[in-house]
Formats: sequence, C-alpha cells, structure tokens
Amino acid sequence: MKIIKPTLLVDKDKCMRNILRMAEKAKTSNAFLRPHFKTHHSAEIGDWFRQYGVSKCTASSVDMAKYFADAGWNDITIAFPYNPLESDEISEIAASASLNILIESEESLRQANSLIKNPVGYFIKIDLGTHRTGVDPSNTQLIETLVSASTDLVSFKGFIGHAGHTYYSPDIEKVFQDSLEILKPLKEKYGGIISYGDSPSCSMMDDLSGVDEIRAGNYVFYDWMQIGIGSCQIEDIGVCLASPVVAIHKDRGEVVVFGGAVHLSKESVDEGGAKSFGKAVRLNENGWDHEVIGNVKKISQEHGIVSMDEKEISNLKIGDLIGILPTHSCLAADLQGHYLTTKGEKIQKIIKV
Amino acid sequence: MKIIKPTLLVDKDKCMRNILRMAEKAKTSNAFLRPHFKTHHSAEIGDWFRQYGVSKCTASSVDMAKYFADAGWNDITIAFPYNPLESDEISEIAASASLNILIESEESLRQANSLIKNPVGYFIKIDLGTHRTGVDPSNTQLIETLVSASTDLVSFKGFIGHAGHTYYSPDIEKVFQDSLEILKPLKEKYGGIISYGDSPSCSMMDDLSGVDEIRAGNYVFYDWMQIGIGSCQIEDIGVCLASPVVAIHKDRGEVVVFGGAVHLSKESVDEGGAKSFGKAVRLNENGWDHEVIGNVKKISQEHGIVSMDEKEISNLKIGDLIGILPTHSCLAADLQGHYLTTKGEKIQKIIKV
Repeated sequence: MKIIKPTLLVDKDKCMRNILRMAEKAKTSNAFLRPHFKTHHSAEIGDWFRQYGVSKCTASSVDMAKYFADAGWNDITIAFPYNPLESDEISEIAASASLNILIESEESLRQANSLIKNPVGYFIKIDLGTHRTGVDPSNTQLIETLVSASTDLVSFKGFIGHAGHTYYSPDIEKVFQDSLEILKPLKEKYGGIISYGDSPSCSMMDDLSGVDEIRAGNYVFYDWMQIGIGSCQIEDIGVCLASPVVAIHKDRGEVVVFGGAVHLSKESVDEGGAKSFGKAVRLNENGWDHEVIGNVKKISQEHGIVSMDEKEISNLKIGDLIGILPTHSCLAADLQGHYLTTKGEKIQKIIKV
Repeated sequence: MKIIKPTLLVDKDKCMRNILRMAEKAKTSNAFLRPHFKTHHSAEIGDWFRQYGVSKCTASSVDMAKYFADAGWNDITIAFPYNPLESDEISEIAASASLNILIESEESLRQANSLIKNPVGYFIKIDLGTHRTGVDPSNTQLIETLVSASTDLVSFKGFIGHAGHTYYSPDIEKVFQDSLEILKPLKEKYGGIISYGDSPSCSMMDDLSGVDEIRAGNYVFYDWMQIGIGSCQIEDIGVCLASPVVAIHKDRGEVVVFGGAVHLSKESVDEGGAKSFGKAVRLNENGWDHEVIGNVKKISQEHGIVSMDEKEISNLKIGDLIGILPTHSCLAADLQGHYLTTKGEKIQKIIKV
C-alpha cells in the first residue's frame, strides 16, 4: 500500500514480543493480565493478546467497553469513575458480559445501585498517591462503608489502583512497594482482589508478586515518553507515524513534515528545557530504523517541525517519508482512523461518530 | 437530546455573530473572506458562512479540501505546503473545483508541474516572522524564480502569509503592519493578491485594509487561548464541552469530569505558572453561563481535573454536567465525532476512517 499522508504504522512482531514479555511476567508473578485497551482502541489488536491466554480486558469508557464487548470480550473493567449518566448503556453491556465499574464515593455507589439494571462488579478505586482520583487509603471509614454496601446487583470485587506518579518518580520500585503496602492490608481485611496498573512499574519491575491482576496497557506499543522513564528500549516501540516531508529549511536545521497535533497529539516531554513531541527515524522496507535522526520540536494542527542536523537533512527531499515515534502512543492512536502494519495490512479501530 | 457523555455543544447564534463581524470587517477593509475551515471540519457549519456571501474557503489538508469540495465548495485553497505524494488527489479535486496550493521551494514547484494533471493555482508562502515555514521575504532571488515559473497548469496567484507570532506578541498591530510592509511590495512588484490570516490580528485590528483575502478561521468558535490574547470576549466563544462530573474531591478543591485529552486535546495555556486545559462554566437551558467557575488544571486520556472553590463544588453532585470552554477549539473539534447545537440538533463533521 502506497503511503501518501500521515499514517500510523504498527509493527506486529514488536507488539507481540511486548505482549509475550508481560504475559511471562504475569505468570512468574502469579497474576493474571487484564490489559488496558485504551492504548490501541482496536478489536484486531485486542485479538493479538488472546494468543497468550488473555481473556479479560480494561476499557477507559463505556463506549470502548461496548466496542470490545461487541468484538467478543466478555470480561471487562471500565477503569474510569462510574458515570451515572451512562447507566443504561452499562446495563446493556452487563446483560451479556461480566462487567466491572469503579467506585470511589458513597454517592456513586448509591446511584449505581439505583440506576444499573443488570449485575455488575465494582472495584473500590484507591488513591495510591497520584491524587487524580480515588479514595484516600487512610479513610478506612469510607472504605468500610463502600465494601459493606455490596449487593447482588452491584457487588464488591476488590481494590484497584493506578500509580500514575511512576511517570514522575525517580524510584519506581519504591512506588510499587508503597502501593503494595497500601493495597495488601485492604485485601487482607476486606477480601476481593488487587488490580494494579501503570506501564512504568509493570514494565520495570521484574516481579509483580502481590498483585492479582495486571492492568497496564501502554506496553503493547510503548512510546518516547516510556523511553524517557526507562520502561522500554527504542527497539520495543511498536508504532511510528509515517510522515511526508513537505518543506526543508536547511539554514535553521529544520524539516517540516505533514504530521501534526491531529496525528500525534500535543503531548510533549521536556528534555532539558526543550520540548519533544516525537522523535524522527528513517523508514526502511521492514518498518523503521532504531536510530533517532531528529526531534519534533514544535507542532501545530497539521505541521510537525523537526530539528535535524545538516547531514541528515541532505539525505532528504520534498515528498520523502520519514517516521515519527510518538511521545504518547495512546493519544496518537486515538487520533487515527486506522493503522497500517509494516506488512501493508490495514487494521481497523474505534471510529468516533 | 439527553447528554450522557462528553459532547461538544455549539451555539449557532454566537457563531453567526462571529461570522457576521468578520464579514463586515472584510467589507470595510475592501477584502474578501476565505475562512479557514480547519477549525470546524463541518460542511453544515461551512454553510453558515454562505449566508454572509462567503463562497471561498481554506482547508489544511487534501482530505479536508476533498470533503468541502464534495459539499459544494468550488474555490478552495489548501493552506499547507504542497505534498507531492497527494498529487493525484489534488488533480482529482482540481478537475471540478478551483483549487490553490502553497509553494515555498523550487523543488515543490517542479514536482507540482510534473505531477499535477489539472490546472491549479499556487500561492507563494512567505515567512512573516513565525519561522514555521515559508520563504524568507529577503530572498528575492527565490521569490522571483517561483513567480516566473508560473505555467498554465500551475499558475501563480499571489502571496500568502500566516502571522502565527501574533499568538505570542505583545503588539499585534505592529505584527500586522510589519506583515503588510513585507507583503505589499511583493504584490506591487510581482502581481497576484495578498492572502492573510491568523485569528488574533484579524480579530483585533478594526481595519485590515491592504490585504485582499482574509483567511482566518478560528473566530467562528474562538476559545480560551484567544481570550488570553485578547481576540474575543467570553461571550463570543461558540463551543463548550458538556462534561459529566464523576468524582468530587472537596478536600483539595477538585472535581473530576469525564472530559479529557481525547475530547479537549492536550493544548494548554500558561497562566502565571499554572496550566489551563480549559475553563469550567455552568450549563444552562440555553447553553452555558459566561462566568468561569473552575480551571482544568490537569488532563489525562479521559479525565479532566477541575480546580474549583468550595462554594461552587457544594452546588455539584456526581452525575451533573458542567461545561468546559476549550483552550484550543480547532483541536477539540477535530477530536469529536459530531457536534450538538444548544437547540439540540446534531451536526455532522469530517470522520477519520
């Protein structure tokens, strides 16, 4: 297939290696996988996980849960605080699939019990220190109230945590151990399972013993942000935006590509004061090289401005394609209409209508 | 229509006022409008401009030009550097519509002449000081070469500039006057028209005399970034993301909404060291209030974290809807499957497949 515009390439072999690595770690750790499918948004890529025995998944919205339920997934957790306004849609999915929701307040649980019509499980969302949402683990009174409000319709399943502060922490092992110290006593006291996820700690810890369920998702693709954290090597990144070169400004060491915020998102990482919205690599006949040849320093709606040294620029002409490794693969994937594998096959994903 | 999940509301009355204001300014300035449709991505919203005599539009990609050509627009400029890889698609649009492309190098123009099969116009993209792309205006040799290479197939139409540095400049009038000082002598010497666009200067200047064509587009919706620049008042913002409240953390003055980076984008503005990914407002029966009641201080894939004072939080419960004025409406619009007007009508837009 001839590529003529920004196209997110996916290297299935790399993704399969990434999935296998996490599946083996789950086995060693005596845990099971419930990968977060918010990274790839694709039924076909979801199927890749089945090869390694994965039968449960995580979604970040009710719409996404519906999409994967329609694709045959029958054990799904919506890892986002329960939205009472979507209770009818939740009930519909729960009519044919085992579905879990997230609860973090009495008010949410009261509304779930009043509005949901088919049995669902609920996890109590615990704030492991990220302070995005969740119950403060020291609030034992609230935790007790939430556990004891379990009914046949909306039944308690365990505790769920997302240590999102691993994205900023210099000591990821400590974040993981601190998380276990919060979650294990809750499980011992109240029962249920421990569901744990975040790609940095799930990638960087060799052993995740102590958690029952591994919910991370980004590892299927990884991205430049995960490189910065140390979760993966450049060889592990599974997606790359093929981007046409449309202008060359050798005098200021810049190449302009067709590949902007509507393809990569505006996610950036700070690298010593300079921003990176992605890293340029050369494309090759099997996919892309593993050597960074430029930095996406600025981005607007359709333009990516790539800084590059003179020698590298000399090899390029207008109409060439270069690859951009995304800073955040989940957001880049959300922005696509489809993927193209490095073998030339089109892969469908969720379409927003 | 009952809103149950993040939904981009559009207030048609406000948008029509914004369009009218720019149409009147164009008349005063003896210029015509070629609004940039990359803001709204919608044939139906494009039609709103026709009411004020607009018959030409601007697109940011070949796909977008194709979409608007299919919707009946027959005079379109693709305001993005010519991508030779899409020459067949450009030729196809040019078979039935008057189409202009952007050129900023000899190599681009050479490829256009060799690859495009139906007549198109070209504008020479001039770098007005933003340094994103375009020809340095002091490079008269290149400009002369580009003008003189005009053919019947690919014919010279004029000079195009986007003063994107108005987004950071303390003196927008100066940027506009400096831009005219660059563009007017080029027109006098080489002919063609002056096409000028960027919402800050087109909004803030009372008179745009000197330019022939006004290409700005954001003004149909405006957004919080334009408020910060001074391009509009809060009453002018035409879109607002209705967002369900899913968690309330009164102790830290935060409300969590279902409304994240996949709905608003990761665009932020810096407000004295604090980031803003959007501003919270109350929804009302006619749309939304014009008083800011909270700041979207953090955003992840589906979550928006809104800081809000205690009194305001006390009025909210889980399952309520609040509005978020986007920081960048063009990117928020790109992320939607459709719009909903404040009168409850669904509006279709471009869908990525």
